[in-house]
Amino acid sequence: MRAVRFTEFNTFPTIEEIERPVPGPGEVLLKIAGAGACHSDVAIFNDFTAEMPGNIHPSFTLGHENSGWIEELGPGVTGFTKGDAYLVYGPIGCGRCVACSRGQDTYCENAADVGYLATGIGRDGGMAEYMTVPARNLVPLGDADPVAAAPLADAGLTPYHAIKLGMHHLIGGGKTVLVIGLGGLGLVGVQMLKAMSAATVIATDMKEDAMARARDFGAVTVEGGEGQAERIRELTGGRGVDAVFDFVGATPTIELAQQTIAQRGGIFVVGIAGGPVTWSFFTNPYEATITNTYWGTIEDLYEVVGLYRDGHITPDVTRYPMDQALEAYQELVDGKISGRAVVMPNA
Amino acid sequence: MRAVRFTEFNTFPTIEEIERPVPGPGEVLLKIAGAGACHSDVAIFNDFTAEMPGNIHPSFTLGHENSGWIEELGPGVTGFTKGDAYLVYGPIGCGRCVACSRGQDTYCENAADVGYLATGIGRDGGMAEYMTVPARNLVPLGDADPVAAAPLADAGLTPYHAIKLGMHHLIGGGKTVLVIGLGGLGLVGVQMLKAMSAATVIATDMKEDAMARARDFGAVTVEGGEGQAERIRELTGGRGVDAVFDFVGATPTIELAQQTIAQRGGIFVVGIAGGPVTWSFFTNPYEATITNTYWGTIEDLYEVVGLYRDGHITPDVTRYPMDQALEAYQELVDGKISGRAVVMPNA
Amino acid sequence: MRAVRFTEFNTFPTIEEIERPVPGPGEVLLKIAGAGACHSDVAIFNDFTAEMPGNIHPSFTLGHENSGWIEELGPGVTGFTKGDAYLVYGPIGCGRCVACSRGQDTYCENAADVGYLATGIGRDGGMAEYMTVPARNLVPLGDADPVAAAPLADAGLTPYHAIKLGMHHLIGGGKTVLVIGLGGLGLVGVQMLKAMSAATVIATDMKEDAMARARDFGAVTVEGGEGQAERIRELTGGRGVDAVFDFVGATPTIELAQQTIAQRGGIFVVGIAGGPVTWSFFTNPYEATITNTYWGTIEDLYEVVGLYRDGHITPDVTRYPMDQALEAYQELVDGKISGRAVVMPNA
Amino acid sequence: MRAVRFTEFNTFPTIEEIERPVPGPGEVLLKIAGAGACHSDVAIFNDFTAEMPGNIHPSFTLGHENSGWIEELGPGVTGFTKGDAYLVYGPIGCGRCVACSRGQDTYCENAADVGYLATGIGRDGGMAEYMTVPARNLVPLGDADPVAAAPLADAGLTPYHAIKLGMHHLIGGGKTVLVIGLGGLGLVGVQMLKAMSAATVIATDMKEDAMARARDFGAVTVEGGEGQAERIRELTGGRGVDAVFDFVGATPTIELAQQTIAQRGGIFVVGIAGGPVTWSFFTNPYEATITNTYWGTIEDLYEVVGLYRDGHITPDVTRYPMDQALEAYQELVDGKISGRAVVMPNA
Repeated sequence: MRAVRFTEFNTFPTIEEIERPVPGPGEVLLKIAGAGACHSDVAIFNDFTAEMPGNIHPSFTLGHENSGWIEELGPGVTGFTKGDAYLVYGPIGCGRCVACSRGQDTYCENAADVGYLATGIGRDGGMAEYMTVPARNLVPLGDADPVAAAPLADAGLTPYHAIKLGMHHLIGGGKTVLVIGLGGLGLVGVQMLKAMSAATVIATDMKEDAMARARDFGAVTVEGGEGQAERIRELTGGRGVDAVFDFVGATPTIELAQQTIAQRGGIFVVGIAGGPVTWSFFTNPYEATITNTYWGTIEDLYEVVGLYRDGHITPDVTRYPMDQALEAYQELVDGKISGRAVVMPNA
Repeated sequence: MRAVRFTEFNTFPTIEEIERPVPGPGEVLLKIAGAGACHSDVAIFNDFTAEMPGNIHPSFTLGHENSGWIEELGPGVTGFTKGDAYLVYGPIGCGRCVACSRGQDTYCENAADVGYLATGIGRDGGMAEYMTVPARNLVPLGDADPVAAAPLADAGLTPYHAIKLGMHHLIGGGKTVLVIGLGGLGLVGVQMLKAMSAATVIATDMKEDAMARARDFGAVTVEGGEGQAERIRELTGGRGVDAVFDFVGATPTIELAQQTIAQRGGIFVVGIAGGPVTWSFFTNPYEATITNTYWGTIEDLYEVVGLYRDGHITPDVTRYPMDQALEAYQELVDGKISGRAVVMPNA
Repeated sequence: MRAVRFTEFNTFPTIEEIERPVPGPGEVLLKIAGAGACHSDVAIFNDFTAEMPGNIHPSFTLGHENSGWIEELGPGVTGFTKGDAYLVYGPIGCGRCVACSRGQDTYCENAADVGYLATGIGRDGGMAEYMTVPARNLVPLGDADPVAAAPLADAGLTPYHAIKLGMHHLIGGGKTVLVIGLGGLGLVGVQMLKAMSAATVIATDMKEDAMARARDFGAVTVEGGEGQAERIRELTGGRGVDAVFDFVGATPTIELAQQTIAQRGGIFVVGIAGGPVTWSFFTNPYEATITNTYWGTIEDLYEVVGLYRDGHITPDVTRYPMDQALEAYQELVDGKISGRAVVMPNA
Repeated sequence: MRAVRFTEFNTFPTIEEIERPVPGPGEVLLKIAGAGACHSDVAIFNDFTAEMPGNIHPSFTLGHENSGWIEELGPGVTGFTKGDAYLVYGPIGCGRCVACSRGQDTYCENAADVGYLATGIGRDGGMAEYMTVPARNLVPLGDADPVAAAPLADAGLTPYHAIKLGMHHLIGGGKTVLVIGLGGLGLVGVQMLKAMSAATVIATDMKEDAMARARDFGAVTVEGGEGQAERIRELTGGRGVDAVFDFVGATPTIELAQQTIAQRGGIFVVGIAGGPVTWSFFTNPYEATITNTYWGTIEDLYEVVGLYRDGHITPDVTRYPMDQALEAYQELVDGKISGRAVVMPNA
């Protein structure tokens, strides 16, 4: 079968012919419907080195945003019907620590021993005709389109997990929330916030077309530049926003969050730009928290699929057949893709 | 000034000419914009007796759903501007117990000593040209219509408080909620649930036109009769609903709640029909709770006003001039009013 | 190897020689240190029938409160060292539904298809020299005594899960909690409540020696009989208790809970006596909830072990060698055991 | 009557003879039992200037940690008995905003207009024979010693509010918490954490005698210096602590918090040293939060009194008669006081 392979550090991926995998005990063989091409993949093949933590080594098949149809069941697996569509929870931990026991493989205590972080990150992913995955990582899609669903495994799950962490700031009337960064994750985040809360969603991005898209989803947008924090505060009657979801994480975006957050509000930094800011007792209003978040849990993904099946989120996808998978990555590298590129290995 | 007075137990109210009140220390004199006529008022003049708990004795001016404009400030009150519009938090407790300290006068520990429960319930209410009220009971309306807002003081606050208690069941994707009873409170509840959560709102009532109105607000409706519980469960994929808000509280409605609630769900009985049901370890799915709720807190009312000002709830009101106030009550007694009758003493 | 077997419905168990099991993929072979004899076992061999839900059929080895040492690893299992001690999370669900994904196999959506509920309940349990169990069901005991720990798998986990559900009622100063029923679970519950909260723990039971034991653990005890509810309310300054944990679940105990609960309190029925009570809008104080709970999650069990290793709970155990296992069950049937009987198949 | 007065910026206080105040509407005249001397008082008379925010101007009577006996009731106040003992909630806001409505005057939206922050901070406090205070600011002490209770109004309420904010990190078995800074607030914090949770309390301070006192209260102490963070982590099995309460707030203490916090833990900075630290996506473990907190709510103070009356906290007080009040302040300035100095104006 064909697969998009990460073969060497700092090397653009290639399409190779490899053996179709056989599902081990507790695993399922999935015929891939869609595999999202993510900026993290670009980081993997462009920036990762042998010395980095996480212990991720080539070669392996890329693709950590995957959906597909049941093809074959490994030993001991029951309860699945061939052809049924599922979305894949990507992270795979040791399966026996307390974090894995609650379906939060992202925080596996034995991650270093496992040898990979997720399907497509150290272990063969979904940019191939078939992929094996533990049965517990499958979330049923019913009759929803699996191709459009594929990016939800990361671009949906990551903002969702952050938003759930922050929802206690947004329950009730008269709340406001700021979304910084309106790429794939941010735009899904805007839709989730509109569906899950009555908060006024304020959104900002450097690109006007991304802001226009956010307005389509019901957000109020505020341009950057001089006085941006003041303009955002004004929209809240001076009180500040109850929560900020920062999908960039650079120094100026976190500082914007600090300048606009309300007392008892919450700043959730999802973007990994890693910009440093200063924090002291006097930097933030009282009881305003700041934290970072990473991907999500299996149960979260069930709930993301719930939002998707109920029509609350519409992922913005561009579909590529398998033989254009490398073009998809090249366009991603070149910054030419808006929304999410989804490769369909079996289309 | 003219006022609608409850003058004797088991006696229809009358309109009387009384002295315009003078605001005491900490109080404000409000020129009334709107006063909602509520079923509880009918209970007061038709059913209350001297022996009932709560110690509510005639005569007093009716009206516990009030809005108005600042007219005059009592001693020690500052920070208000004449003519500004406010909604009134009705309950008034002792002001010095722990429940009152958190703005939950409904659960005042010294209620029996206070001599009244709320404006219009034991103390002069808003069915008059003017009313006095403690300054802390006023929630600013800004430029929102105060007449349409008046019923929110009860028909908005009561479902809101119940919904906030139950919101932890409804955070996330793929949730469902059942609203039983689509009168004034239930229809506001449906709107709040649609705005504040991504849950599928299932609604039911004996009246088809109430169900039609709920559908307008985005609910899925299910008729009563044989197999109703099964039809509701089906809408949830068999799992049951994550929360029920029962605005009736009769035996069959609570039993419907018990038959349709999901594991770990919550039943919130708001309606005071008082029907008994049986509870045992085996009656409800595991960890499904059942409870009752009553009115709300001052902070809740700020948030209700937030929902109203942000356009998330549209109270269904019929306006009556002061000289038709008794007709409004008569129509309420006769079951001829849909939505809420609001008397405008100064129109 | 020897095992205590449930061989036929309504039949006292027997000790038989059976094959030592072989761990399957993802499983571990555990050399049993201790297996608790529980009242549920008596229900299984005395009361269960073929028609009951749960689909539990003889024959199988009893014992769902198990601890032991790693003996052998099944295919695909890594990260364990032979001889290390673990406590066993008993429930085993399908492993692939949302409830199992969060480590709550008790609420497995496919329980009916699995064919058993837990080790020792439909599947071979720990009343044998060896037992197989999925690796994720093992919670490390470190150097704590595994024999004394065994009953914690149920008699610790069950009250713990209920208490965690109710802890939001007990956070803070000046709280009170009532524990009804001071058998194995109730006495562990008292210790947990003393350790985990600053609440005054009020306890009651029909047996004076059980009450004496509760007093040793720091509880205030109140005898049954005329005026019990009033005497309990008095201890709370009239306010009522903030939470009740009822380890009996009979009509009079749940009624006692209803009579003593405070506004906004929580009643948690753990005992399965199944007594019916009446609930209506006017039965309980405002916002007091009532619910039932069942066993717990894997993560809960980690936390129970945390309490045990930190010295906060001391299970009351009587140790039996394997050849007295049937005597242990007989004494349990005869009501002669206080605390928990633990069988040590390898002692 | 005699009162300790702050008469001019940057000037040591003096004892003056002033008029006994008369309680206004809604107020009570309190005969002072105890008034705690707090480091904040030193900041007021040593460091405050006319330009500082908060609008605090001399002259006024110091003392924001007060207790006393009802002496006289102002107009409209009922429900108090002369001679009954109360603890005083110090903060006083506008009384009509949403924060004040929930008893959180510390976050009053109109603080700038009020002209003072609290009794003893801009408005006459308790370092006098008598003081007036709004009735709602009084928390009943019953028969508990009011002199020892006085410091709880700040040195109890401040750590309590922070701990309640952080309790969700500490519910359950096997948790750990770090307390940095073992002055008056820190030592009360240690006692509260021991009473309210089963967490292992790790404590650190530069002074050995403070650490010894923490050990008396059940804490495990860790000395400062090289490798402190590692030694703390070791006590948690490498996982890190679930919460940090930093009663210093200097750069090195917050950095210690950042180095020792666990994934999903919470850092609560209470001390106002104001030291800056760096925060970025990569600074803290995933989902670890950092925030600041300030004083508490009226309801919190009820709960602090609950802990005190139930014997869970023992404030460490040194008693001074009124004519040694200035000596008490001088010793505080000189760093000679351990625990809390309480002035007894009527002793």
